[in-house]
Amino acid sequence: MMKLNCDMGESFGAWSMGADKEIMPYIDMTNIACGFHAGDPQIMEQTVALAVKHHVAIGAHPGYPDLLGFGRKAIAFSENEITNLVLYQVGALQAICTRHNTQLSYIKPHGALYNVMMRDMNVFQAIVKAVAYYDANIPLMIMATPANQQYSELAKNFNVELLFEAFCDRAYTDDGDLQPRSQTGAVHTDLALITAQAEQLIKHQQVKTSSGKVLNIKADTLCIHGDSELALASVKQIRQLL
Amino acid sequence: MMKLNCDMGESFGAWSMGADKEIMPYIDMTNIACGFHAGDPQIMEQTVALAVKHHVAIGAHPGYPDLLGFGRKAIAFSENEITNLVLYQVGALQAICTRHNTQLSYIKPHGALYNVMMRDMNVFQAIVKAVAYYDANIPLMIMATPANQQYSELAKNFNVELLFEAFCDRAYTDDGDLQPRSQTGAVHTDLALITAQAEQLIKHQQVKTSSGKVLNIKADTLCIHGDSELALASVKQIRQLL
Amino acid sequence: MMKLNCDMGESFGAWSMGADKEIMPYIDMTNIACGFHAGDPQIMEQTVALAVKHHVAIGAHPGYPDLLGFGRKAIAFSENEITNLVLYQVGALQAICTRHNTQLSYIKPHGALYNVMMRDMNVFQAIVKAVAYYDANIPLMIMATPANQQYSELAKNFNVELLFEAFCDRAYTDDGDLQPRSQTGAVHTDLALITAQAEQLIKHQQVKTSSGKVLNIKADTLCIHGDSELALASVKQIRQLL
Amino acid sequence: MMKLNCDMGESFGAWSMGADKEIMPYIDMTNIACGFHAGDPQIMEQTVALAVKHHVAIGAHPGYPDLLGFGRKAIAFSENEITNLVLYQVGALQAICTRHNTQLSYIKPHGALYNVMMRDMNVFQAIVKAVAYYDANIPLMIMATPANQQYSELAKNFNVELLFEAFCDRAYTDDGDLQPRSQTGAVHTDLALITAQAEQLIKHQQVKTSSGKVLNIKADTLCIHGDSELALASVKQIRQLL
Repeated sequence: MMKLNCDMGESFGAWSMGADKEIMPYIDMTNIACGFHAGDPQIMEQTVALAVKHHVAIGAHPGYPDLLGFGRKAIAFSENEITNLVLYQVGALQAICTRHNTQLSYIKPHGALYNVMMRDMNVFQAIVKAVAYYDANIPLMIMATPANQQYSELAKNFNVELLFEAFCDRAYTDDGDLQPRSQTGAVHTDLALITAQAEQLIKHQQVKTSSGKVLNIKADTLCIHGDSELALASVKQIRQLL
Repeated sequence: MMKLNCDMGESFGAWSMGADKEIMPYIDMTNIACGFHAGDPQIMEQTVALAVKHHVAIGAHPGYPDLLGFGRKAIAFSENEITNLVLYQVGALQAICTRHNTQLSYIKPHGALYNVMMRDMNVFQAIVKAVAYYDANIPLMIMATPANQQYSELAKNFNVELLFEAFCDRAYTDDGDLQPRSQTGAVHTDLALITAQAEQLIKHQQVKTSSGKVLNIKADTLCIHGDSELALASVKQIRQLL
Repeated sequence: MMKLNCDMGESFGAWSMGADKEIMPYIDMTNIACGFHAGDPQIMEQTVALAVKHHVAIGAHPGYPDLLGFGRKAIAFSENEITNLVLYQVGALQAICTRHNTQLSYIKPHGALYNVMMRDMNVFQAIVKAVAYYDANIPLMIMATPANQQYSELAKNFNVELLFEAFCDRAYTDDGDLQPRSQTGAVHTDLALITAQAEQLIKHQQVKTSSGKVLNIKADTLCIHGDSELALASVKQIRQLL
Repeated sequence: MMKLNCDMGESFGAWSMGADKEIMPYIDMTNIACGFHAGDPQIMEQTVALAVKHHVAIGAHPGYPDLLGFGRKAIAFSENEITNLVLYQVGALQAICTRHNTQLSYIKPHGALYNVMMRDMNVFQAIVKAVAYYDANIPLMIMATPANQQYSELAKNFNVELLFEAFCDRAYTDDGDLQPRSQTGAVHTDLALITAQAEQLIKHQQVKTSSGKVLNIKADTLCIHGDSELALASVKQIRQLL
């Protein structure tokens, strides 16, 4: 069955973001920021505790070391650096998990790191390597595209399992990419549109692009963005669909 | 037999510190900075690789999140925050270790966190808890003082093992504390004095304080500071003593 | 006439804080964070633009370099370091002001730096020095207490003018200090109480402490906290009083 | 007469970089890091004091906010963000200068910001704007290329004066760019080669590229890199040439 995942733990120090408490009861998997683009040890622990309370699977959500840019700006790290910065963040969250007798269920890169991973197979391999070094039994979540196959093959070489996610609140290009956030219409702000896209993904494994083209998208999980105002409303509606 | 330990991996980005490559061959245990007061994922990985090459045991060296102050300024974190920031850093280094098929052998707090831990039993307990949550089989290294007993008892309640370290290049007060770095004479700059203090600690488990008093100090390991100019010379001399 | 001042520009990157747009029309002076505890160049510029639009005087609001702790944790900087970190932040905001053809009207330290300044005359002097070096025509805003005199005398030695502020949403101790935020009741959450305290300060230059004692507090300006839920409501009521 | 300029103040907290004390006596202009890629208020003040002692002109050396990458990684800031982050850093250093009764003589961007400025006229304009807002009497230092003219024209529109610098320790491409640091041979490590390149620039306003081509380069100043081992030796030799 299709799982719902949501980015969480994106507060930092005195700054709050997202509606983690409200949304956590409705999701299956929570991607927790690991301190580089958002989150701090305290926020991480609170978010882990919240996930445990609601029996939600915990995923590490590593990003570029860029609080100011919230991990949304691409920074030219080498592949070796990327392997290390993913390992670092994954281990940090795993350690916080021990405090609540739980552990990581998966790893999903954040923001610009996620985008760069999807368009640069060398960066994808650097991240797969990090997962393989750390614990090959922990799957890596990436974006479902019409080209899932090439990612699966590379990951298989490292015995790393993949999870594929699709987006119900983001517009798709005809190539199966997400429309960049800098463009108008990149993020759906209409509840009916979000729900319709979710339904199409769940029932038909398809998505309609900005231009109206229909793409085949095989996904294990749907991503809900917790920082939008519609987040809570849409997660409730999609939960009912499931 | 008395082991030699040394703080390492204290470079950051483009900035170098210490003589890790020169000193690593002469020590038994290396305390590796975990990114909060020094170190970054890249430096951490290079230092782990160096330790593995020289068969040196790896310890996590967590500090306050304070690059500007190099973790040497006390910051009023709550006990709960301290447990989390120690967990975070320990897990981060452990993850980097997996890249070189190795693992943590112990944990030793850094700088002001170390000092606060020694004078505040609540902070000490917060750190012991972090170790107990993470892996009670990994010992915690603290300062050997005439009052080792009280720390041992608390740690025993959490099934955490302690390692005690003494210093050969720092002046002791009559209370068995280290003289603050802000005071003249806090750090020995005379090779003969460093070697003599090491010899006294190794052979007699004693140290002579600034005022001339002799304290009984039972230590498992001697700390060498890798960032002093004398570090390499003194570590070679002390290695010969052993 | 009593002026209203409010801390603003306390967002950072993707994180929002405060209700700057709603509150700006009702105040006379805005204390803008300078990037060390909150704020970034972008946020600073937007806040300066907002102040200019509403003809509100701009004050630099320098804090400790501690984003994680929002400048609310005391950190043991030397006096010389404090002079430099105040200069740095003041100059940074002044430069941003040039973009909107405006300039700083005053300087008010933030959070723990403010508290330390009020209880340690050496730190107060370090900050007065920063103002004197930078531009002795820019007044320094500090807390009005029954002991205003000692601060005035020291500042006069450096030809620095002081502005005194009182608080309408914080509880006072019998010594004329603010009750620490860690204590219950430190921050007033009752609109009537806030308004009453404002009225007493405006009309009688007095404040009633937690224990019921009445203190004489001569203030030039009242501080409103923009990050509380009551901020907007209270600022409107107090504006009517004036 | 050709002036010598050198990047300085590139230490940070406990980490040292460069040989500022040794090199300062031999140069005419010092580009001081402003805290975003290197430097902190304390280091900045010490470097300003050193410059004043040796009668060396002070330039602000703003960079991307990236301590970990030392400002050498391009980060996709918008033009508006670049204007603000340059203003911020310039004002910060100017404020530190007031402590030593001195002021900024010019502005020179650092590292990746400098490189991006040279290849993207929109970014160049964003920086020119920052200078124009702050104080159009402070010139902006950029790289001398065969295409100086296009930069001069744009700057003239904002009444901003330019200074052009050439490099004696970096290899040039046939297009008049610096060879990227990631390539072998990008940085000259041979004293004779550095001195010869300096002599050719001083006497003939020409430089020989990696491929042997000769370019016309009109420069007001030569940049010496203070972080190379050859820095001191080369600056002494070039000083004698002048």
